[in-house]
Amino acid sequence: MRPSGRNLDEMRAVSIETGITKHAEGSCLIRCGDTHVLCTATIEERVPPFMRNSGQGWVTAEYGMLPRSTSSRMRREATQGKQGGRTVEIQRLIGRSLRAGVDRVALGERQITVDCDVIQADGGTRCASITGGWVALRLAVNKLLKSGAITSDPLISNVAAVSCGIYGGQPVLDLDYPEDSEAGVDGNFIMLANGQMIETQMSAEGATYSRAQMNELLDLAEKGVAELVSAQNAAVS
Amino acid sequence: MRPSGRNLDEMRAVSIETGITKHAEGSCLIRCGDTHVLCTATIEERVPPFMRNSGQGWVTAEYGMLPRSTSSRMRREATQGKQGGRTVEIQRLIGRSLRAGVDRVALGERQITVDCDVIQADGGTRCASITGGWVALRLAVNKLLKSGAITSDPLISNVAAVSCGIYGGQPVLDLDYPEDSEAGVDGNFIMLANGQMIETQMSAEGATYSRAQMNELLDLAEKGVAELVSAQNAAVS
Amino acid sequence: MRPSGRNLDEMRAVSIETGITKHAEGSCLIRCGDTHVLCTATIEERVPPFMRNSGQGWVTAEYGMLPRSTSSRMRREATQGKQGGRTVEIQRLIGRSLRAGVDRVALGERQITVDCDVIQADGGTRCASITGGWVALRLAVNKLLKSGAITSDPLISNVAAVSCGIYGGQPVLDLDYPEDSEAGVDGNFIMLANGQMIETQMSAEGATYSRAQMNELLDLAEKGVAELVSAQNAAVS
Amino acid sequence: MRPSGRNLDEMRAVSIETGITKHAEGSCLIRCGDTHVLCTATIEERVPPFMRNSGQGWVTAEYGMLPRSTSSRMRREATQGKQGGRTVEIQRLIGRSLRAGVDRVALGERQITVDCDVIQADGGTRCASITGGWVALRLAVNKLLKSGAITSDPLISNVAAVSCGIYGGQPVLDLDYPEDSEAGVDGNFIMLANGQMIETQMSAEGATYSRAQMNELLDLAEKGVAELVSAQNAAVS
Amino acid sequence: MRPSGRNLDEMRAVSIETGITKHAEGSCLIRCGDTHVLCTATIEERVPPFMRNSGQGWVTAEYGMLPRSTSSRMRREATQGKQGGRTVEIQRLIGRSLRAGVDRVALGERQITVDCDVIQADGGTRCASITGGWVALRLAVNKLLKSGAITSDPLISNVAAVSCGIYGGQPVLDLDYPEDSEAGVDGNFIMLANGQMIETQMSAEGATYSRAQMNELLDLAEKGVAELVSAQNAAVS
Amino acid sequence: MRPSGRNLDEMRAVSIETGITKHAEGSCLIRCGDTHVLCTATIEERVPPFMRNSGQGWVTAEYGMLPRSTSSRMRREATQGKQGGRTVEIQRLIGRSLRAGVDRVALGERQITVDCDVIQADGGTRCASITGGWVALRLAVNKLLKSGAITSDPLISNVAAVSCGIYGGQPVLDLDYPEDSEAGVDGNFIMLANGQMIETQMSAEGATYSRAQMNELLDLAEKGVAELVSAQNAAVS
Repeated sequence: MRPSGRNLDEMRAVSIETGITKHAEGSCLIRCGDTHVLCTATIEERVPPFMRNSGQGWVTAEYGMLPRSTSSRMRREATQGKQGGRTVEIQRLIGRSLRAGVDRVALGERQITVDCDVIQADGGTRCASITGGWVALRLAVNKLLKSGAITSDPLISNVAAVSCGIYGGQPVLDLDYPEDSEAGVDGNFIMLANGQMIETQMSAEGATYSRAQMNELLDLAEKGVAELVSAQNAAVS
Repeated sequence: MRPSGRNLDEMRAVSIETGITKHAEGSCLIRCGDTHVLCTATIEERVPPFMRNSGQGWVTAEYGMLPRSTSSRMRREATQGKQGGRTVEIQRLIGRSLRAGVDRVALGERQITVDCDVIQADGGTRCASITGGWVALRLAVNKLLKSGAITSDPLISNVAAVSCGIYGGQPVLDLDYPEDSEAGVDGNFIMLANGQMIETQMSAEGATYSRAQMNELLDLAEKGVAELVSAQNAAVS
Repeated sequence: MRPSGRNLDEMRAVSIETGITKHAEGSCLIRCGDTHVLCTATIEERVPPFMRNSGQGWVTAEYGMLPRSTSSRMRREATQGKQGGRTVEIQRLIGRSLRAGVDRVALGERQITVDCDVIQADGGTRCASITGGWVALRLAVNKLLKSGAITSDPLISNVAAVSCGIYGGQPVLDLDYPEDSEAGVDGNFIMLANGQMIETQMSAEGATYSRAQMNELLDLAEKGVAELVSAQNAAVS
Repeated sequence: MRPSGRNLDEMRAVSIETGITKHAEGSCLIRCGDTHVLCTATIEERVPPFMRNSGQGWVTAEYGMLPRSTSSRMRREATQGKQGGRTVEIQRLIGRSLRAGVDRVALGERQITVDCDVIQADGGTRCASITGGWVALRLAVNKLLKSGAITSDPLISNVAAVSCGIYGGQPVLDLDYPEDSEAGVDGNFIMLANGQMIETQMSAEGATYSRAQMNELLDLAEKGVAELVSAQNAAVS
Repeated sequence: MRPSGRNLDEMRAVSIETGITKHAEGSCLIRCGDTHVLCTATIEERVPPFMRNSGQGWVTAEYGMLPRSTSSRMRREATQGKQGGRTVEIQRLIGRSLRAGVDRVALGERQITVDCDVIQADGGTRCASITGGWVALRLAVNKLLKSGAITSDPLISNVAAVSCGIYGGQPVLDLDYPEDSEAGVDGNFIMLANGQMIETQMSAEGATYSRAQMNELLDLAEKGVAELVSAQNAAVS
Repeated sequence: MRPSGRNLDEMRAVSIETGITKHAEGSCLIRCGDTHVLCTATIEERVPPFMRNSGQGWVTAEYGMLPRSTSSRMRREATQGKQGGRTVEIQRLIGRSLRAGVDRVALGERQITVDCDVIQADGGTRCASITGGWVALRLAVNKLLKSGAITSDPLISNVAAVSCGIYGGQPVLDLDYPEDSEAGVDGNFIMLANGQMIETQMSAEGATYSRAQMNELLDLAEKGVAELVSAQNAAVS
């Protein structure tokens, strides 16, 4: 039995509210249950040095948690003088995942930075960041298309992410914090709309998993991603 | 004529939504026109080293801006390895201002940290942070009173803040960004509910001001603070 | 009764010795009682990136305290990896204040950096830094005028600063450290020679103040600044 | 056809030389083709704060690359003031992976730190670090067993890691640098000796992968890990 | 011919003014020609962790240059986030040198920190820092003796330092900046009053030196140190 | 009697293995007894800003110790956010020493960076780094000569270094760690092949030394350097 009473293959309620900041080219507030992440996309007409004169664009991401997004207050990373290892890992993952859905030649030599800031955390913040980040990216790209800055759509597919894990010996979809902190095995699955995989990260802390279990989690993930893609499409249409 | 069409002594619309994060002991989202700040208050049963065994509590604040709270994206302070000078100045001001409204003996030897994170900026973020920060503080203190952790109310008054300045040669109340970026003189006025002053900061960039002008701004500030105190009281009741 | 035996409206003895380092374009050692600050002005034929091609110059300041300028040794900021919040606040204030007395078009596209290093502290180091910093600036600008690098004087007025506060319930001028550490309310007042105000910072720690009290402090400040302007003029003539 | 001429399912030559530093409790130099990593294990009779009084031990890892382990010189992380994001990610992975093979109660309240320093890089440094790191860990634990500090073996299995990817449209085992830099999809597979999985990381840069492809890579990885486990066992016996 | 017109074995004029800050336990301003260094000694009744419960004291030093102590302005180390390599080297040398003249058992378990801040530089700042630093140390120790905190004098000898070098092919004593920047070989010689050596640092940039030349420099250094010891004794008596 | 049983003027066994990394333009592993240092030389076709358009090249060095090169594990400098003072001192010494043997005009406007990473430490790591660093430099320069990038040899001599000290009252050559940690006086002597000196660093911790003692150490150093030069020549031929 899951702490939330959900079925094993049941996602938390997802809502995606767009256009929530007037400055960003694209923005949304994604809520996956009690995990709330503010995502913005910023377009800049320049690329990082390693991409200059390549004729291709770049998509990157940054991630942060507000100090009191968690049940006890976390120290603000800006006062610690650096981003922690977990933050760095997560923002690299978000950037890589979003880039997998982008035709960088069609984007042209410009950069889109997706900022994901967690307002309230309850498990699955990196997956919510990818799913919401794609919505912000989609809206920003729409603006480029509308203005005529680009003429063919550089987004080749939705990108969405969900976590699954083995909780109480059972494979479960979309872990919340009480599950995540107990699960011996958990994974993050990032996919295109058609179920093709972009990134798979499964890890075990104090446990291991078999290929059969891995396949059960992949089945759940495909179901979850399909639901997230629907929510994305509803939000941006 | 003000860019927003407001009268010289007219505040922007203020809204204060409380209870917006489930983890914090007190929280609100304050909106002063298009300036939106998320304020949370965290209670910890310990004080900084310099206050230990003093029998008194401590109130402190931290401030941040999300990277895309502004019209062009700001670099995230966590990636720069430190908080900028402006950030440090502002968070010290917020902390000092809130402490002026607190009986630290009545609070007891515990610390309340008020985090103010700007979601969208349009001028006056430090004043909105103080005004909203007081609401988060009030709610957190209410929780202490309700639980019996403290028995007499340590908050001796509301604390609220407003900016005024000389724009187009005229004294104006509650500067928004278009005004703030043009004003030769501007000030921040932090007061108790009864108009007693906690902190006055007036500065001129490329201009100076007379005592007569200073008094005109003080008159406006008293009016503005009175309105903010009403909004605070409505929000917490 | 003041600890020093001074009258309520009596400044500490001020001395300003110029030309004390052979390298700087302008320099002085200002002594306000036992507060001693070494001020140097450096001219560089370039401006910060945000001023380039603006046809205007820039004046900025940096501030530091020698480790044993205080009664117990302070940790050296260079070994701590950053300037503290108080240092940053003060050097931004010095720079802003000095700029208010400068016609930046007349200065031409060059930068003058004023370094204020406290040799011995006894209260009022930021005010002494502004007052002494202006002398160093004046001497450096004189050099530019003499060499023909500029032809009209970019300094539109003296800039001087003094602190006042409420000590033992009485308004007093030019707080020394024993007063400063006890005063519930204190302020820094930066003015031009004619009494026009550049910056006013009044703050209360564990107290508040009325407009009547604020006016009493302003009266004292005007008297103090007039005396400092005389001392500046004597030093540079 | 692979650049090295290897078969699709052929590992690079592996050699593991133990006892190469006199100071460390366990050490080896692992060579996977031209990727050479020096691994040491250090035993300390204390655990990190979050493990104190838990009755359990801790295993952690740090990773570094010598500046000229790569074809063009990398900047030394010590001179940059911090470890890069990739370094942090890798050392967290090494630590997590090794812990999965450890009974931390049997280890007792002590910490073993595994340092993996890349002497020469040619792809797969993180996998070589895990495989070699386990050998250093095994040798250090042997020392604890021999001295009687612990009485039952805390290592529940070998831990080894190998990378696989899709290169030229084909699944290949144990990517070297020329393959790694071209592969659209690559993954790192960390397993126990019996093939149970500890961590799976597959990611696509500019491509995606199907579940069928993922299964092909898992088949290759099982073969590779079995060979690495044999090499580990030969080295420590 | 030396740029200053001095004889080959002629020191610059030395003056040592003591008691120049009211806060420090010992202080002086040493002037070696145009090199001016402010030295203070601070006594603290604690020692660094590695000396605790050893029954011995510790003497350490810190060094800094004011930004405009040099002919063009140097960046302030506090704003750069760290002390530069040259600074670290110099302050370690000062500390080591002064400790060589101290009986650390007689000092008792306390620390004396000598701060050397260069007000104006013209070559030889590290030597002036050692020579002046010893005077500050002597005065601080005198205070301990006078108060009865210690009963036997922990200073076993004066410590003084001078630079020599080969300039224009000739061995010269006490290099000033024009000589120092041209000299192919230069050295710093730190000695006790009786000529016993504490530290010798000779280095060649773009040149080398023979043992005969080294001996000539040592002869000059002995003469110089004797003169500095006289100046120290005059200053503290 | 020396702990190792060596004669007073006896070096440890020296071996220099070249070509140990495939990426570097020059490389060696130098072993001086149990002190093992990996040295690589990297050629880059650019010079630091202060050398641009000078027509001269630059040689610089960096130094590091692997965390478990010492008997107890040292904290990794990359995780501490900076290189320690000792590291900075040593790498500056290595760079200066190697430059003394280089004709920088003949080198042409390019930079060679010598990295010295200590694999195992047993005293004398800075001397081993210089001696081994020169071998790496020699090999890299040979590559430039062979390719025709330069036509005359910029290396004017071997550069080698050895430590000597006073141990148990006796002058001894080539201190190992047990001697180094006990010696009251020790020195590092860097010379050309012909015995001309580049740098001499003698220092006393808790002791002093006479000129006679200094001369005895110089005699030993000359013997040691001659042996190291032979080992270098054998390695590179």
